[in-house]
Amino acid sequence: MPLHSFADLVADAIDAKGAPACVGLDPVLDRLPTPIRAASSDPVRAIHAFCEGVIEAVADVVPVLKPQSACFERYGPAGVAALAELIALARARGLVVVLDAKRGDIGVTAEHYARATLGPPEGEAGRMNAHAVTLSGYMGPDTIEPFLDCPGKGVFVLVRTSNPGSDAIQAQRLADGRTVAEMVADMVAALGRPTIGERGLSSVGAVVGATKSADAAALRARMPNTIFLIPGYGAQGGTLDDIRPCLRPGANRPGEQGVLVNASRSVLFPAGGGGEDWQAHVRAAAGGLVNELRSL
Amino acid sequence: MPLHSFADLVADAIDAKGAPACVGLDPVLDRLPTPIRAASSDPVRAIHAFCEGVIEAVADVVPVLKPQSACFERYGPAGVAALAELIALARARGLVVVLDAKRGDIGVTAEHYARATLGPPEGEAGRMNAHAVTLSGYMGPDTIEPFLDCPGKGVFVLVRTSNPGSDAIQAQRLADGRTVAEMVADMVAALGRPTIGERGLSSVGAVVGATKSADAAALRARMPNTIFLIPGYGAQGGTLDDIRPCLRPGANRPGEQGVLVNASRSVLFPAGGGGEDWQAHVRAAAGGLVNELRSL
Repeated sequence: MPLHSFADLVADAIDAKGAPACVGLDPVLDRLPTPIRAASSDPVRAIHAFCEGVIEAVADVVPVLKPQSACFERYGPAGVAALAELIALARARGLVVVLDAKRGDIGVTAEHYARATLGPPEGEAGRMNAHAVTLSGYMGPDTIEPFLDCPGKGVFVLVRTSNPGSDAIQAQRLADGRTVAEMVADMVAALGRPTIGERGLSSVGAVVGATKSADAAALRARMPNTIFLIPGYGAQGGTLDDIRPCLRPGANRPGEQGVLVNASRSVLFPAGGGGEDWQAHVRAAAGGLVNELRSL
Repeated sequence: MPLHSFADLVADAIDAKGAPACVGLDPVLDRLPTPIRAASSDPVRAIHAFCEGVIEAVADVVPVLKPQSACFERYGPAGVAALAELIALARARGLVVVLDAKRGDIGVTAEHYARATLGPPEGEAGRMNAHAVTLSGYMGPDTIEPFLDCPGKGVFVLVRTSNPGSDAIQAQRLADGRTVAEMVADMVAALGRPTIGERGLSSVGAVVGATKSADAAALRARMPNTIFLIPGYGAQGGTLDDIRPCLRPGANRPGEQGVLVNASRSVLFPAGGGGEDWQAHVRAAAGGLVNELRSL
């Protein structure tokens, strides 16, 4: 039971900012504010400048940043280099960083991914050094285990996602009565049990979409110590009422509610925020997210 | 029905080389041949040099190369740049390239990954431009669909993998009698149907481990037009007898058998192949793989 597990780090960060808010860093070139696009015609430079501005704007407001790896991988090595620099900046500004990469492989390959995403940069330049990474568990527990050897780091395993097509897999019913998502939830709970820290939370988290609240209570019962990373809030249609069934019962402090609620587009690209004062709009949108989540 | 679909390209390449052989490019630093390690202390340079040598050694022998993205991502942007260069070299040498990246996300994020892995380099330097990519379908059909918009490209979706932990998810029985793997197989078959090309094969392939031959016949029945990418042959314990149930019945030419059999370690690091003549050993091991697979 390490004193500073990933789960403890997240819980402390949430308490410090007052709400379990996560900003998704999903930059999309053609939505960048006008001044950013005017300053550079190079897509990676423009995205880098925008993300720097977002990090500076939200670092005092929210506890957690979730960069979307695909938005950077799309631009090849230069994009990957920008991502590593932005994670370093976010860490330096005190943000907890969850790299959304949804990796999922086994054995030595999983070890490579663990080094690639969570490895510290000492000795090998440009590794990501995120605090946690999102994973797919379709290949079984051996996709997750190699990541648990990284001290102080965490993972979030896909359990129940908010996209329309997810029902085709995750909502299917097993012969034993569980859904596929509930089966994965049991795996997540079992893998996480040895990692439960001072705050009662495990460092093996779960991705549970905000638009699947009908399933959330059952998943919470199966994963009592798990942090739910909840995408789909705001722009994707999730509401506070959708999130409430995800909360751990009886939690006294926001960091122990066991949720981390992500908003991307509504914070990155708020209405009217495309001009010179775009950072103020981003900061205000992040503040609005925190205020909303305080009432959970 | 495009004339030169990914599946047609693979079938033609297999016929040209005489066997459905795939070499997995999974470089591991501490297993590199002595002369490679002596030439550079920089891990990315050493891996790059080794992989160049492997590509030159096997390009005339096997039809398909499967680079493991994790082995390169581990080294950050420099590793990713090396991977893009090696894919370009492999394509220039006439190899079909399947990038083993096991990505799995939805919507615009999946589009980013499609561009990152399959996108041509024009306009944005350093994208991978692989012929196909491996994917995880846990989030549903919307993880796969954005990749199908890439003309002439293909995907391989994880269905039944060869690792010990895979049973915990993939072998679970649904209430309707199918296993989870069979459910995913049905999704793969449905998504692939509109892509079936001249050779009767779909460009939505499936990953089916060689050590799960007991399941293979049932999976073949559910996916009659699907190319099975079969890892686990050789070093991981799979045999020709394990592969036979994966074959499409009645195929007259190797390219229409519907399999692609991968060997990594046994070709990259053959016994006794760590000295100056390491490339000859790699070439001989690749030739041995082709010869074995001719008797399928």
